[in-house]
Amino acid sequence: MINNTNVEKLLINYKTLEQFKRFKEYGNQELSMMEDLQNNIVENNSESPFYGIYFGHNLIARMSLYRMKAKYDNYFSPAQDYLELWKLEVLPDYRGQGYGKIMVDFAKSFQLPIKTNPRINSHGFWEKMGFQKAQYEMERDLGQNPLIWLPEGVSEKDV
Amino acid sequence: MINNTNVEKLLINYKTLEQFKRFKEYGNQELSMMEDLQNNIVENNSESPFYGIYFGHNLIARMSLYRMKAKYDNYFSPAQDYLELWKLEVLPDYRGQGYGKIMVDFAKSFQLPIKTNPRINSHGFWEKMGFQKAQYEMERDLGQNPLIWLPEGVSEKDV
Repeated sequence: MINNTNVEKLLINYKTLEQFKRFKEYGNQELSMMEDLQNNIVENNSESPFYGIYFGHNLIARMSLYRMKAKYDNYFSPAQDYLELWKLEVLPDYRGQGYGKIMVDFAKSFQLPIKTNPRINSHGFWEKMGFQKAQYEMERDLGQNPLIWLPEGVSEKDV
Repeated sequence: MINNTNVEKLLINYKTLEQFKRFKEYGNQELSMMEDLQNNIVENNSESPFYGIYFGHNLIARMSLYRMKAKYDNYFSPAQDYLELWKLEVLPDYRGQGYGKIMVDFAKSFQLPIKTNPRINSHGFWEKMGFQKAQYEMERDLGQNPLIWLPEGVSEKDV
C-alpha cells in the first residue's frame, strides 16, 4: 500500500552514495560522483541528476533524468528539449508495488518527451508505461534499443 | 582448441538473422534489419555492421563495429576516427575458449581507438583485453559506463 510517496531530488553526499551501492546499475557515474566529493570538486549536498524514493531511511528506488537541449534532439518532432532517463531501478524487496510507475509518472510530469534505453527484459514494463520503440537508426543508436514517450502534440522524428 | 578461426563480416540475409535470435542482446537493431530485408529496403546479402565466428554452420560469436568520424570523437586525443564496439557476445556453450578474445583482437587489428559500453559484470574480461575505464562525463555518457582501448600514440581526451 503506497501512501504519500514522494519522489525526491537526490543530493550528492556520502550517505546517498553509500545507498547507491545497493543498486545493480552502480557504475562509472556513481564512482565519479564519489571521487568528485572526496576531492572537493563538488560540494557536499550539491545537486545530482538522480531522483529517488525513500522508505523510512532507505532509498528503495532511483533514476537519473537529464534534460537534453533541442539542438541535440534527434528523436522528436518538432525538435525540442527532452529528457533522457536512465538507471530506473527499484530494489528487489520493493518491486511489484507501483514504485516504478511512480518514478516514471514523475518523469512524465515535466511534460517533455522522454527517451530511455532499457535493460533487456524490461520492455513489458515500459510498454505499460506508454513507451514505444523508436525506429532504429544505427549511426544514432549504435547498441541501444531506444524507447520513447510522446506527450500530446509530439511525434517521433522520421529517420 | 581453436584452430583456423576466422572472424567474418556478416551479411544481412534470413539465415544470419535467424542465427542472431540465439543471442541475448537481440534487439531493435536486428528487428530493423529484418524489416528492411522483408520490405526490400536492403538487398539480400548486403553488408551489416556485424562480425562473427562460425563453428560449422553455427554462428557462435558476434559483435557490431562501427567507425565513428573524427569530428564526433569526444573520447580520444588527438581526435580521430574510432570504432564503437557493441553486442560482443559468445554463445554459452562456447564461452571460456578464447572466442571473445579473437573477436576483440580482430577489432584491435584496425589500429583505431575503440570505445565500448559493456554490460554489467563483464569488466573483468575487458580489463584483460587491455581496455580501461573512460572518465565519466554526464552530458556525454548519460547511462553508459564507457570503456576505451588506446592504440600506441593515442591518449584519452581530458574532460
